[in-house]
Amino acid sequence: MELWLIGIGTGNPDHLTLQAVKAINGADLILIPRKGEEKADLADLRRAICAEMLTNPRTILSEFDLPVRAAEGDYLNGVADWHDAIAESWRAAIGRHPQAMKVALLIWGDPALYDSSLRIAERLARHVDLSVHVVPGIMSPQALTAAHGVPMNQLGAPFLVTTGRRLRDHGWPDGVDTLLVMLDGECSFQTLKPDGISIWWGAYLGMPQQIVDAGPLAETGPGIVAARKVARARHGWIMDIYLLRRGPGTGMPGQGSAAGAGP
Amino acid sequence: MELWLIGIGTGNPDHLTLQAVKAINGADLILIPRKGEEKADLADLRRAICAEMLTNPRTILSEFDLPVRAAEGDYLNGVADWHDAIAESWRAAIGRHPQAMKVALLIWGDPALYDSSLRIAERLARHVDLSVHVVPGIMSPQALTAAHGVPMNQLGAPFLVTTGRRLRDHGWPDGVDTLLVMLDGECSFQTLKPDGISIWWGAYLGMPQQIVDAGPLAETGPGIVAARKVARARHGWIMDIYLLRRGPGTGMPGQGSAAGAGP
Ligand SMILES: C[S@@+](CC[C@H](N)C(=O)[O-])C[C@H]1O[C@@H](n2cnc3c(N)ncnc32)[C@H](O)[C@@H]1O
Ligand SMILES: C[S@@+](CC[C@H](N)C(=O)[O-])C[C@H]1O[C@@H](n2cnc3c(N)ncnc32)[C@H](O)[C@@H]1O
Repeated sequence: MELWLIGIGTGNPDHLTLQAVKAINGADLILIPRKGEEKADLADLRRAICAEMLTNPRTILSEFDLPVRAAEGDYLNGVADWHDAIAESWRAAIGRHPQAMKVALLIWGDPALYDSSLRIAERLARHVDLSVHVVPGIMSPQALTAAHGVPMNQLGAPFLVTTGRRLRDHGWPDGVDTLLVMLDGECSFQTLKPDGISIWWGAYLGMPQQIVDAGPLAETGPGIVAARKVARARHGWIMDIYLLRRGPGTGMPGQGSAAGAGP
Repeated sequence: MELWLIGIGTGNPDHLTLQAVKAINGADLILIPRKGEEKADLADLRRAICAEMLTNPRTILSEFDLPVRAAEGDYLNGVADWHDAIAESWRAAIGRHPQAMKVALLIWGDPALYDSSLRIAERLARHVDLSVHVVPGIMSPQALTAAHGVPMNQLGAPFLVTTGRRLRDHGWPDGVDTLLVMLDGECSFQTLKPDGISIWWGAYLGMPQQIVDAGPLAETGPGIVAARKVARARHGWIMDIYLLRRGPGTGMPGQGSAAGAGP
């Protein structure tokens, strides 16, 4: 069996690549996970993408319930158990369509970035004869930098992609002046001494709700914290990401080239 | 005037997003740089993409010669002068079509990643009234991880995107177990003590010439050095990128989930 993990971008249906459109139409079976109430928008987007892009009448869409993550216990073990449970739910959903040779899942952003589907596929492969195919998709760091018209890296310099938790627990890492921070429910940039740091922030990137802000962290940070709270309350959920840059020549926003393509 | 920097992916025309196709067709003028003999394949790809995707009869394609980079002198000043010269060549090319309100450039991969077009646009903006719009594109790290079916990050862990020069000059940086190394003409992984490190390598990713290899660095490294040399001689040019991961649980290739979508 072929398992296709298809990156769909971060909420803008036009983020889809031509390769993704072909892979969607090449699938016998597309599995759509139901993740519960607050993430309903996201399952809706997957349904909308299928409704719009799917021209193959033979492709079957099948919704299934994702298991819920155990709230207590050791974090990494909890994740491992949860991934086992998801692999089992994939197996059961696939088992209902034994004639399907190409099974696809639509993955938020890019399947290689802070996403568990490759790890779950590895678990599934212990029980099912499987070849895994990955279709890359526009990921949130790209949606962020495109919206701001800001480069990820400074000339010839490295950058670190990291999480809010790491930033809180370890501070600004040595040897790198640009951080792309994801998976941050707590605006962890607040734990930094803001002098000399610039921030480029975005929430709901690529979606109709898109919000962006940028500037020196000391001045812009508090407004981001407030805007995030309001947006989260209004929509019931939020996904946001930011780029932090320190040192001279941060390419401060508002110097003529900061402009976005919109969602 | 609007300047559209449109990411086109890394050589596979199916990397184009629907947003990119729309932006190409929304342009009044598309500038195609000629970069000289050895990069002719790349200008050809841009022409092929335009030939295939362009349905707007009003869009003008205009080729122009890119200035050559000064070979001697200080690196950063040399780059600054070169960017000035490119900005000037853009201005001249645009000046030949004064009625064009939307001008587009097709950018390899994503315009935010190790690419100078945003910096050149900033220079152009000093002379021309400009709004810059960025359309994100599949970038080489994504083409690499998709080809191998390997995640960029380990669970909740950060990763560093860096250059061959940095790896050579500074060794493995502290505090991070995954490196994505780009712009490396010298297989700089050879400067590392290979024990406990795995590599996932790819050249010409997304293109018909695509080559990939992966495994423990000690065993796989020498073969990559040899394969790179052969491929470079055969094609006259090469672009390659690799992911290095150290420590236990590197998600070693060949455990069932390593497989790619092909170019
Ligand atoms: C579980 S990770 C998945 C990342 C995804 N695979 C990608 O390629 O972007 C979720 C995190 O991605 C970021 N993210 C994803 N989509 C986003 C969006 N539309 N706007 C802002 N941030 C987003 C947020 O940092 C969020 O916490
Ligand atoms: C000047 S940078 C441009 C990067 C580009 N903007 C991107 O998004 O991938 C060129 C470097 O990108 C990597 N690269 C670009 N295209 C590639 C491909 N098709 N295969 C392998 N590496 C590639 C190589 O490391 C190369 O040295």
